[in-house]
Amino acid sequence: MTNDNPRAIAQALGRIDPSKSLQRFIFQHYSDPMTLICPIPIQQYPTVLLAHGGGGRLMNQLIEQMFLSVFGQPEQGQHDAAVLGLPGDRLAFTTDSYVVQPLFFPGGDIGTLAVNGTVNDLAMAGARPLYLSLAMILEEGLPMDTLWRVVQSIKQAADAAQVRIVTGDTKVVDRGKGDGIFINTAGVGVVEHELAIAPTSVKSGDVVLLNGDLGRHGIAVMASREGLVFETAIASDTQPLASTVAKLLAADISLHCLRDATRGGLTSTLNEIATAAQVTIQVDETAIPVDPGVQGACELLGLDPLYIANEGRFVVFVPEEQADEAIAILKADATDPTTAGLIGRVVEQTSAPVILRNQIGVDRVLDMLSGEQLPRIC
Amino acid sequence: MTNDNPRAIAQALGRIDPSKSLQRFIFQHYSDPMTLICPIPIQQYPTVLLAHGGGGRLMNQLIEQMFLSVFGQPEQGQHDAAVLGLPGDRLAFTTDSYVVQPLFFPGGDIGTLAVNGTVNDLAMAGARPLYLSLAMILEEGLPMDTLWRVVQSIKQAADAAQVRIVTGDTKVVDRGKGDGIFINTAGVGVVEHELAIAPTSVKSGDVVLLNGDLGRHGIAVMASREGLVFETAIASDTQPLASTVAKLLAADISLHCLRDATRGGLTSTLNEIATAAQVTIQVDETAIPVDPGVQGACELLGLDPLYIANEGRFVVFVPEEQADEAIAILKADATDPTTAGLIGRVVEQTSAPVILRNQIGVDRVLDMLSGEQLPRIC
Repeated sequence: MTNDNPRAIAQALGRIDPSKSLQRFIFQHYSDPMTLICPIPIQQYPTVLLAHGGGGRLMNQLIEQMFLSVFGQPEQGQHDAAVLGLPGDRLAFTTDSYVVQPLFFPGGDIGTLAVNGTVNDLAMAGARPLYLSLAMILEEGLPMDTLWRVVQSIKQAADAAQVRIVTGDTKVVDRGKGDGIFINTAGVGVVEHELAIAPTSVKSGDVVLLNGDLGRHGIAVMASREGLVFETAIASDTQPLASTVAKLLAADISLHCLRDATRGGLTSTLNEIATAAQVTIQVDETAIPVDPGVQGACELLGLDPLYIANEGRFVVFVPEEQADEAIAILKADATDPTTAGLIGRVVEQTSAPVILRNQIGVDRVLDMLSGEQLPRIC
Repeated sequence: MTNDNPRAIAQALGRIDPSKSLQRFIFQHYSDPMTLICPIPIQQYPTVLLAHGGGGRLMNQLIEQMFLSVFGQPEQGQHDAAVLGLPGDRLAFTTDSYVVQPLFFPGGDIGTLAVNGTVNDLAMAGARPLYLSLAMILEEGLPMDTLWRVVQSIKQAADAAQVRIVTGDTKVVDRGKGDGIFINTAGVGVVEHELAIAPTSVKSGDVVLLNGDLGRHGIAVMASREGLVFETAIASDTQPLASTVAKLLAADISLHCLRDATRGGLTSTLNEIATAAQVTIQVDETAIPVDPGVQGACELLGLDPLYIANEGRFVVFVPEEQADEAIAILKADATDPTTAGLIGRVVEQTSAPVILRNQIGVDRVLDMLSGEQLPRIC
């Protein structure tokens, strides 16, 4: 009985019908993910083949033994689409593809991002995330074990964010026509309030709150990609934000807008909102928290943390009178409560969408970059 | 006034506020897609750059000027997720990535497939398709004009299938790490009936109907890829199937299962259903329509049309007493009514999931292939 033959292990243990649910059994009975055995026999298929995407027996095996074993069999059996209940008549719907390089970095991997990123997009629309789809584009030759690690990350992140992976797709492209793994997740959530949480709801008099320090995700990925070692390891800030948003909603905070500061960083986020709302956002540079390690890495690399992608940081626009209550909720959910707080105010539209006031009281326009400082960050 | 400056054209025509909705204006006023001007100035950006996926100004320009101009601005303004009404409490949710090569082929392109494929997955679950997401992974260096052609195809296909593109995402990967364009669409539909349309609902006594001839899509893509020229051009069968399904539902046909015969062809489709339902499907080879041109190409290339991917063909499992009524509906929607009809019957489970009876009455097992005969067919 060898480690790479889960069917034999399961049969030997005599607990299951060998024709069914084999890998779910394995998953349930080896709950520590580090001890989980890759359910595709590595000796037989050490890497992904084009045939794993071809619609035949090998693809079925991959879906059955790897994906459905982890995410569970659909209730009505496998079919072209999942049929699901929606507890409400307003749904939120979003999609994101993930092409981050490297696939694994301190604090997460492409699988963690693919869940948290899409969950957060739903949360930013004020929705309670319910269901995710999972579509993978695999490059021929991808080590099967790499795929297995990513699938486990997805499962853990989905459980943590309380969403279910309900439908999926797998394609394989020839060697040299992809880059290991690309993932797309689309998300469906339910909107259970009457607020219009959107950039156009932002108005003069609102305050801008931020839930934590900036730049960790971008620096963590960049450091992994370039093989840089810093004195203190910097881990990605990737995390699901839906439960924090749920607390803000439960406290009856009049949320005008929520937005996570991903690609393009805080600067792009604020510029997009100010432009849509036809207002100006005044930001206080001294109020923006940046970890000293991140700041040091940024100085070394010539990067500005205000433009770096985050995966667990978001801005909240609320009327000033509710600022304290909202900040208390953000602080309660922050790893370091001192990093959550008020960073700016919304005023009538002036010459620029976003103005940054620095430590010595000098204002400058905080403009968008043409591209991103760091490509393929998510 | 040059062709590559739509802003100048629109301003000269004096009909719009130049700061807004420029490209939507262009789209509305140049309704023949062949005369549409690519809204990203080709002289300035002849190809896609990494910065087009970076979250900065260039990405915003691409989204505003190309995607939103074609698909329309979201009602609540751009946001992380679309908030939508759902006329019912059962939703269908599906996803598919499209990696077909070449991007353009007789009868369609990757954009057409990306809409029809996902619309059909919803239809196969008995749902009325409502909303699609659109996520593109672009390779750096992709000609901007190629992207524009694909975007127009997507718009035309979405209009034809009566679905709305409501949310999207764009990523750009470095040259040599992708293959022009990969597209993911996820789809949301509403289920407006009480039937359980699923493989597990198939039972002994059901008949198997097919809505048209097999093999066109695979041969069309294969011929384009390999530069083969046949006597008669073979075009892909890609088409949306939702309206045909709607007619079957409206006629109160007891649909037990619907499934489109895509990757792996009719053979994989029938094998998957028979296995899930624990039945045997007996298929009559003489009843399976294959165009003589497709048959000739298959013989030349050593391919079997029963294993070739289709993008507009589906099987319908219904009780025998409703066969005639269902066939009449399939015939009414078929390009050639003689190609729609009964191809097999469901019997109690025997030794093999699918049995094919040939012209001289000999039975053989119709087994799944390991992979696909033709990789990257969708």
